[in-house]
Amino acid sequence: MQRRSFLKKAGLGALASTSIAAAPAVAQSNPKLHWRMASTYGPSLVSLYGSAKAFCSMVEEATEGQFTIRLYGGGELVPGYNVLEAVGNGSVECGQSASYYYYGKDPTLCFDTAVPFGMNARQMNAWMHEGDGLALLREVFAKYNIVNFPMGNTGTQMGGWYRKEINAVADLKGLKMRTAGFAGEVLSRMGVVPQQVPPGDIYPALEKGALDAVEFVGPLDDERLNLQKVAKYYYYPGWWEGSAQVSLYVNTAAFEQLPKHYQAIIRAASRYAGVQLLSSYDAGNAAALRRLIAAGAVLKPFPRDVMDAAFKASNEVYSDFSAKDPQFKKVYENYMSFRDTTLPWLRVAEAAYDNYLGIALAK
Amino acid sequence: MQRRSFLKKAGLGALASTSIAAAPAVAQSNPKLHWRMASTYGPSLVSLYGSAKAFCSMVEEATEGQFTIRLYGGGELVPGYNVLEAVGNGSVECGQSASYYYYGKDPTLCFDTAVPFGMNARQMNAWMHEGDGLALLREVFAKYNIVNFPMGNTGTQMGGWYRKEINAVADLKGLKMRTAGFAGEVLSRMGVVPQQVPPGDIYPALEKGALDAVEFVGPLDDERLNLQKVAKYYYYPGWWEGSAQVSLYVNTAAFEQLPKHYQAIIRAASRYAGVQLLSSYDAGNAAALRRLIAAGAVLKPFPRDVMDAAFKASNEVYSDFSAKDPQFKKVYENYMSFRDTTLPWLRVAEAAYDNYLGIALAK
Repeated sequence: MQRRSFLKKAGLGALASTSIAAAPAVAQSNPKLHWRMASTYGPSLVSLYGSAKAFCSMVEEATEGQFTIRLYGGGELVPGYNVLEAVGNGSVECGQSASYYYYGKDPTLCFDTAVPFGMNARQMNAWMHEGDGLALLREVFAKYNIVNFPMGNTGTQMGGWYRKEINAVADLKGLKMRTAGFAGEVLSRMGVVPQQVPPGDIYPALEKGALDAVEFVGPLDDERLNLQKVAKYYYYPGWWEGSAQVSLYVNTAAFEQLPKHYQAIIRAASRYAGVQLLSSYDAGNAAALRRLIAAGAVLKPFPRDVMDAAFKASNEVYSDFSAKDPQFKKVYENYMSFRDTTLPWLRVAEAAYDNYLGIALAK
Repeated sequence: MQRRSFLKKAGLGALASTSIAAAPAVAQSNPKLHWRMASTYGPSLVSLYGSAKAFCSMVEEATEGQFTIRLYGGGELVPGYNVLEAVGNGSVECGQSASYYYYGKDPTLCFDTAVPFGMNARQMNAWMHEGDGLALLREVFAKYNIVNFPMGNTGTQMGGWYRKEINAVADLKGLKMRTAGFAGEVLSRMGVVPQQVPPGDIYPALEKGALDAVEFVGPLDDERLNLQKVAKYYYYPGWWEGSAQVSLYVNTAAFEQLPKHYQAIIRAASRYAGVQLLSSYDAGNAAALRRLIAAGAVLKPFPRDVMDAAFKASNEVYSDFSAKDPQFKKVYENYMSFRDTTLPWLRVAEAAYDNYLGIALAK
């Protein structure tokens, strides 16, 4: 905070222009400040990038234009998957990313985004804001010099694009699939061979058969990759991303130096942008799915035995990680306990309502 | 707005005080302001009242304590169901309410909260923030001198408490049920006799048989009424409240007089509080439902023929209202078109995921 004593500077009788610079606390209440935000995402991911922009705009508007944050897309300032490091070491004051990209550094970070058979978007919000989620994850992020804020969710993602039908677990054997992180760990136990491929190379890799399958996000973002032309089977649900939370990272020292009301504005603006993110996906995915199907995508649910095998393999991975990492175990147990206590309620009124309406409207 | 010239008080010369009056906006950026908020709800509705408090606190924090809003529960300043009028005529600057309480004044207002077989909470957010919802409803509220802001959702509500089982539509004939508004209109076409009963009188009325059924909210709020002792059948879903949005009302003139950055803070703080509301219900309902069942509540889905009859009766009411009210028709058509285009997507990945997990965890 940059408080100044107007009396000291004004010297009572000094020039008027000096007095202006030297106002009482209230008069300097919105100090000028400029930050940079590094996002993992570029403008082509309209919902994700758009929500980061909404955050920056809200902070600026709420401070009369005094606190500005300039947004940089993935790769502009730092590589998209280095946002955690860049914010932690203070190269930038803040960032937008999904914490499961840093699985290799610390698998516990995945609970901030998505884990296999984890919570849906409503549950995730409830865990973060009414459960122990935020407090637990703040402890984890503190080690990386970051104060984290939930900033939206993509909702349940799709299970990806496949060149051939998946009729049983056996069809996953040797499947070269673009996936990574926690999902990759589980899928590899099911026979899949995870591959790392940049988005721009996905289409030719599928076309040539260097890849058999690809998971990306959901209809809205997938649409621009045109994958239905080379891998028409579009499977659901993405059981490794029952929802995927996106986070705002703020460098701890930078956050602590902010005036308290700027800190509050960051809290409010991150939720503001978060509501926009999920809304944007929910509206956009619906329209995009329709277009994808018209363009030849064949929509398919994963067979039950694939889901069962995935559920089993996921629980094995959880056990293995919990056995060797006490922090993982602590967050895992709290997370799953919240999932298990909130799901039954959502299966009652919420699911019964949606199910009925889904049937009634399909008539 | 109470702007002060500190220089006048500091006793500086004429030139100085003139320069300060002409100072850039930054020097007086957070003016002192005090508002009153009238809520429909009292502190016993912990989630609803708590979210209004969260809104007021955030506005205060984000303005360095300069803009304070004091919250009054239902009946403290104005009767709980008069909040729309009180904000509109400027008796209070702002309020928290659910717009379907004002069905008698204008049925189009119901689209701001809940209508039979309307959208779930995710869809409602998407319609408000990414669809035409907010713009359309702003037009409606402008007639009442109000600028409305979405401020959360309860999620799908329960269908209420019944003394006897409902096995078919015929069982609704002559049923004395506490309900009102749009739902009451549809239910009366199905044979129900809607009754208005204040919350405090519900228990004795059910006990004595003056009432056969009651719809209130959901497990968290219903629990304190103890209804399982006198009407043990707890039906779901509340098809007249597939979700129920709560709103912040701000008097139009009061809003327009605010500095732009205070307006932005209201936008951000209302979404901030809204996230808290749904999270609080999702966490709280889950725990309360468990306790209610342990206390003797018998959970039951409405039979399919009741749902079908309700769907049919609702559509008839929509047709009738649309035929005589062009504004209702305009909002209705936009709302239902958004419901119908977004539901199929949510029935794919989202529903498949939740369904699978519901089954896997119940094993």
